[in-house]
Amino acid sequence: MKRKLSIVKIGGNVIENAEELDQFLLNFSHLEGAKILVHGGGKLATKLASQLGIESQMANGRRITDAKSLEVITMVYGGLTNKNIVAKLQALGTNALGLSGADGNSIMAHKRPIKDLDFGFVGDIEGVNSKLIDTLLRAGITPVFCAISHDGKGQLLNTNADTIASEIAIGMGALFDTTLYYCFEKKGVLLNVEDDATVVKFINTETYSDLLEKKIIADGMLPKMENCFHALNHHVSKVCIGDISMLRPKATLFTTITL
Amino acid sequence: MKRKLSIVKIGGNVIENAEELDQFLLNFSHLEGAKILVHGGGKLATKLASQLGIESQMANGRRITDAKSLEVITMVYGGLTNKNIVAKLQALGTNALGLSGADGNSIMAHKRPIKDLDFGFVGDIEGVNSKLIDTLLRAGITPVFCAISHDGKGQLLNTNADTIASEIAIGMGALFDTTLYYCFEKKGVLLNVEDDATVVKFINTETYSDLLEKKIIADGMLPKMENCFHALNHHVSKVCIGDISMLRPKATLFTTITL
Repeated sequence: MKRKLSIVKIGGNVIENAEELDQFLLNFSHLEGAKILVHGGGKLATKLASQLGIESQMANGRRITDAKSLEVITMVYGGLTNKNIVAKLQALGTNALGLSGADGNSIMAHKRPIKDLDFGFVGDIEGVNSKLIDTLLRAGITPVFCAISHDGKGQLLNTNADTIASEIAIGMGALFDTTLYYCFEKKGVLLNVEDDATVVKFINTETYSDLLEKKIIADGMLPKMENCFHALNHHVSKVCIGDISMLRPKATLFTTITL
Repeated sequence: MKRKLSIVKIGGNVIENAEELDQFLLNFSHLEGAKILVHGGGKLATKLASQLGIESQMANGRRITDAKSLEVITMVYGGLTNKNIVAKLQALGTNALGLSGADGNSIMAHKRPIKDLDFGFVGDIEGVNSKLIDTLLRAGITPVFCAISHDGKGQLLNTNADTIASEIAIGMGALFDTTLYYCFEKKGVLLNVEDDATVVKFINTETYSDLLEKKIIADGMLPKMENCFHALNHHVSKVCIGDISMLRPKATLFTTITL
């Protein structure tokens, strides 16, 4: 039987709120078995960039990661946020170790090819170093990933945290019975986006088609759901979406997605 | 017979100069056997602090690490500098992995006690997690430490990089035949500080007393030498001091210190 592994991604909204982050980390530290945390960045990087007079480069309404923005991201995600989360988890008895994709060559990527648009130093993931991650997990370590990968040629690359989480889940799927958790500000996939009580508790391929047809899943939720099914189609056992209370042992109000 | 381990500390002067850093990393990547890099910070943190309008707090001429300064240090040392060094080493074929002392609980410390002066968030090292470091080395990893430790209660602590290097060397001394390298801007301990040709090639306890008496070793060099002999008195085989060319296979112009 495969060992169990939980991979939890937290979004910027959780990181920006100190109380919320502490509560999340407490819940996370109580999760049993092997686990991995992936964190996004939140608005701290935008704030620091603005303090330093670095303008956000936009093109066709999409953010571009130029050299200066990448420096800010490396400082905030890789430094401030990552190291503080690690120190807090250590205080909670979880032996955390922070990583970017460059560390131990853990997440290999290439700079996104220029088609209509040059996104700058943005990485598309090629693969995950499952051997290293397994070595760390076997040593009782809880890896904490920030949303940075590298190209193996000395270049760090800004990379979507949802994608990092799903690619790690996929990469570890051969060795582990893997559950992927997406923690954000909502209780899960909602029938009515204004009402937390309308959580869809279970989604599978069939009910997903139905929700898509009825246009219940749209906008920002669509790429997240695509990430989920991509993971499920590649050896990930289960994906859960919800807020930070989802990690509590008796939690029921969140969305579970299977094939 | 014990395995060989090289622990190399580079100072701020090397880090600040991109060409010098690249040359150093090339030399470091060619070092055979198990190795560890420890880097200080340099003036990048001071520069960022000043850009953000954070004033350096001084007391009795000594720098104080307040909460804002610690944030800057965590961003620059733990983020920007550490991750870029790791990415560059990866490109050179060295499987580097960046760490602060919080990561994997690798360097435990406590906040320096307040006597005449409160240094703020500055750490005095209690111990090094030699088991974790050995696990990483056995996995073919080259740990890259920034000058940050933690207190195990959630607090990161600014910590002298020379001390981190010597404490790691001491901590690994039971498992390894350990050589500690201090890389800085001079060729080594100089009889005439203006003349690189006056390197003292070998120093031991006896010749050290002699140099002290003649006041050849003074000022900034004294704490560094004290660190060296402290390490040698605690299971470290050899300490070498010199510039970045010291790591080349045929280098001879640097200072070697033994008991």
